Amino acid sequence: MIGVFDSGVGGLTVVKEIYKAYPNCKIVYFGDTARLPYGTKGASFVKRYSKKIVKWLISHGADSIIIACNTSSAWAADSLRQEFKDIPILEMIGPAIEQACLYTKNKRIGIIGTPGTIRSGVYEKRLAKKGCRVFAKACPLFVPMVEEGLVSGNIVEEVAKRYLAPLKAKGIDVLILACTHYPLLKSTIQKIIGKEVRIVNPAEAVVKGIGFYKKGKSSFYFSDQPYNLQKISKLCFERKIKPIVNDPFNS
Amino acid sequence: MIGVFDSGVGGLTVVKEIYKAYPNCKIVYFGDTARLPYGTKGASFVKRYSKKIVKWLISHGADSIIIACNTSSAWAADSLRQEFKDIPILEMIGPAIEQACLYTKNKRIGIIGTPGTIRSGVYEKRLAKKGCRVFAKACPLFVPMVEEGLVSGNIVEEVAKRYLAPLKAKGIDVLILACTHYPLLKSTIQKIIGKEVRIVNPAEAVVKGIGFYKKGKSSFYFSDQPYNLQKISKLCFERKIKPIVNDPFNS
Repeated sequence: MIGVFDSGVGGLTVVKEIYKAYPNCKIVYFGDTARLPYGTKGASFVKRYSKKIVKWLISHGADSIIIACNTSSAWAADSLRQEFKDIPILEMIGPAIEQACLYTKNKRIGIIGTPGTIRSGVYEKRLAKKGCRVFAKACPLFVPMVEEGLVSGNIVEEVAKRYLAPLKAKGIDVLILACTHYPLLKSTIQKIIGKEVRIVNPAEAVVKGIGFYKKGKSSFYFSDQPYNLQKISKLCFERKIKPIVNDPFNS
Repeated sequence: MIGVFDSGVGGLTVVKEIYKAYPNCKIVYFGDTARLPYGTKGASFVKRYSKKIVKWLISHGADSIIIACNTSSAWAADSLRQEFKDIPILEMIGPAIEQACLYTKNKRIGIIGTPGTIRSGVYEKRLAKKGCRVFAKACPLFVPMVEEGLVSGNIVEEVAKRYLAPLKAKGIDVLILACTHYPLLKSTIQKIIGKEVRIVNPAEAVVKGIGFYKKGKSSFYFSDQPYNLQKISKLCFERKIKPIVNDPFNS
């Protein structure tokens, strides 16, 4: 069974891609809504809770892990792999970088994500090693916009222009959506950044790394009542999901 | 010493009003940045952490408490007063309601706040008892906009129109800013809602309830690295503050 975790509901866009590739794949999902957002939290906080969550997922039957959260992928993936050597741990950043390098012709790559992911500098460092120039921009309003169901229209386009204009001016030819919520804004982002820029959705890339899986009914756990879960769920799956709400890390 | 707490940095707008009334007032501030935002969390979560924080503030010398967070005021004030009978606990909602009732002529009052505050229905219930009609609207984008330093301009006005148009259409003559961040958007909100609507900032109202205070240097504690603290602090005080970052509720 594949264990997927995120700071909240955004990881459902990753589940969406898993289902596209492997319909009926059995997943145990944990959204840490009690402590979201991870994007503005410190690195040690994100590491500590990522470890707790992976332990919990394993105790609930997961035999492989996908870190859907980009902030957690940036800060916790290495220490998680050190800690849990026996199971495959997939994260969002490596596969996204591979994909971006396949797409780019001019080696000028844009990254958008939460303040935490951007501040970590992890994409820049890894892409620089591959000879790419990287232009990064934190987009803190995108997540609350998606969670409000605002994925197109005037306000979204104005906000997208604000964030994307500096990247467009740099002549990027690939843009990585380094936050789970952003694929739901893909059509607006494509419209603003221009058709000539190829967009990388890390979830599509990471799914290619899944080696084995079981079929069965998935379970969706959240550490606190998820805000606008059904809105996001319908945007992702065109149906509702049944959340199980309980915080295992609080006495 | 006055203990002030909030889910994050927004409570600094309350500190701003305390300083306006009582310069050099000694304050111990706790921003629960490790678990913010409270606005989308469940009621039992908010109650549990509010209690922990009040205990912590008392152990750090507070002999009166101001609950700066509206969500916590809505869900936790009653149980906190039951639990901590020996010290005065001020919250945002009662004073804001008194002020709104003084201002209104047509008894049609608007409320804007986080989804949690609005969902609690606490303002509606209390204002209904006073014979007012209440029109409430959750504005989830306002907090991340303020935290990005976006307090005026085109995007803010577009978002404000989206939220405030339904209230304007109801002919309200008073609007309560039921979230600590919103006073920083006051001039934009006033512009969109119209000059004829009087705006209530609960922080201004609550400060009138302070009975005693000490002079001295204030301390500002946060349970995790606060995001854009200096931006908010400069918007509030026109100077920076020195945060002490430590989560007392995590082993």
